[in-house]
Amino acid sequence: MRFTSERRLDEALLERTFTLGEIPGILWTPASAPAPLILLGPPPLGLHTMYPRLVARARRSAADGFATAVIELPGSGDRPRWPAAERARADLRRVMEAGEPVSDAIIDALVLPLVDRAAPEWRAALDALLSLPGIGGPVGYSGGVISLGTRLAVVEPRISAAVLFAGSFVPRAVFEEARRVTIPLHVLLQWDDEGNDRQAALDLFDAFGSEEKTLHANMGGHTGVPQFAGDAAARFLTRHLT
Amino acid sequence: MRFTSERRLDEALLERTFTLGEIPGILWTPASAPAPLILLGPPPLGLHTMYPRLVARARRSAADGFATAVIELPGSGDRPRWPAAERARADLRRVMEAGEPVSDAIIDALVLPLVDRAAPEWRAALDALLSLPGIGGPVGYSGGVISLGTRLAVVEPRISAAVLFAGSFVPRAVFEEARRVTIPLHVLLQWDDEGNDRQAALDLFDAFGSEEKTLHANMGGHTGVPQFAGDAAARFLTRHLT
Repeated sequence: MRFTSERRLDEALLERTFTLGEIPGILWTPASAPAPLILLGPPPLGLHTMYPRLVARARRSAADGFATAVIELPGSGDRPRWPAAERARADLRRVMEAGEPVSDAIIDALVLPLVDRAAPEWRAALDALLSLPGIGGPVGYSGGVISLGTRLAVVEPRISAAVLFAGSFVPRAVFEEARRVTIPLHVLLQWDDEGNDRQAALDLFDAFGSEEKTLHANMGGHTGVPQFAGDAAARFLTRHLT
Repeated sequence: MRFTSERRLDEALLERTFTLGEIPGILWTPASAPAPLILLGPPPLGLHTMYPRLVARARRSAADGFATAVIELPGSGDRPRWPAAERARADLRRVMEAGEPVSDAIIDALVLPLVDRAAPEWRAALDALLSLPGIGGPVGYSGGVISLGTRLAVVEPRISAAVLFAGSFVPRAVFEEARRVTIPLHVLLQWDDEGNDRQAALDLFDAFGSEEKTLHANMGGHTGVPQFAGDAAARFLTRHLT
């Protein structure tokens, strides 16, 4: 892990960009140390495009005493193009624009290779981040790409609580993985999310094996999570990580 | 409204029992006045049986600055027996013990006459309570018998926010009423509630016409609402009533 830039956003928040091998990432740390770490679920549109939303979440988390970090997904942002992923996205766009049902095969091609490739990268990032001074366990996960959050919750024992956002396609295989999740979960569902299958989200919530799992469903579309729902998710992480 | 007893539970909480005509009720008021009022959804098992849970909610609400009140349902507790309601409950018990599906006719007979009779009583209680010194608007509703909460949310303009507990049978007619609800709602659903139809609860949540409505689903049975879910419901009421 190599830091590539550093700037202080305000007295309470230091932002550092880094690379982990070829993978770009961002780390935000609060004034208080050691800080527990929240991995921010990866932005499908890339770090640069999603930066304003990411830094807003980093600020909020820092106010609660958390460090936050995020890395770029394979094939996103400035990372090398990934032709198979691009084909899968193009296939999805085509059937959605044609108003056709999105098949399991398309969802599998879109999500499974991404999760298989991203999960080890996130674990490697966790190794590097936890070795930094000022970062101390426990670790939370919070954000999108619910299939990656599910995979990490199963394979990464250092993650002890997760906020998952039910807003993306979920392969059938992930429902099976979900049964093996045991950490406390807080699942956000936008009830009228135009691009999301509500029933699939409810089925996935049902499938999670965790003894403590909470579903918060709110009105509005994909990006319309109300402020009070963000506050509730933050309280969940504070409750489990501090 | 006639007060029948008064005792101070602690420095911050005064408990008074009252009768409104023949209907018994309890009013809890905090030290601070004027206090906004929360109507505690009525206990199907009667005020006396449910007193420990009611007073716990009254204490919590008083700590948040709220007065709370509850009245006995028709046919419950010490109120005169109501043969039709007893028959409906016996019919329900019979089909449930036989493991048969609960028909719409049984649900209608169980719930609709109760709501028709209780709703005007709750409105009369609200008239009396709001005329007391120390009680000031706005008013919230929080608790069980979701069909009564729905009816009150539609017909009683003084109620400005409601916490509803999805844990009882809901007649089809109430789904139509739900579309006319416009106040902010916070719906609690116990995901594994043995006596509750989860899909019906989700359908009812979907039916509510409110622009702000939130569903909080948690693990556990009917009486297993986790502490943090109670806290979240309390925050919802504080956000809307103060």
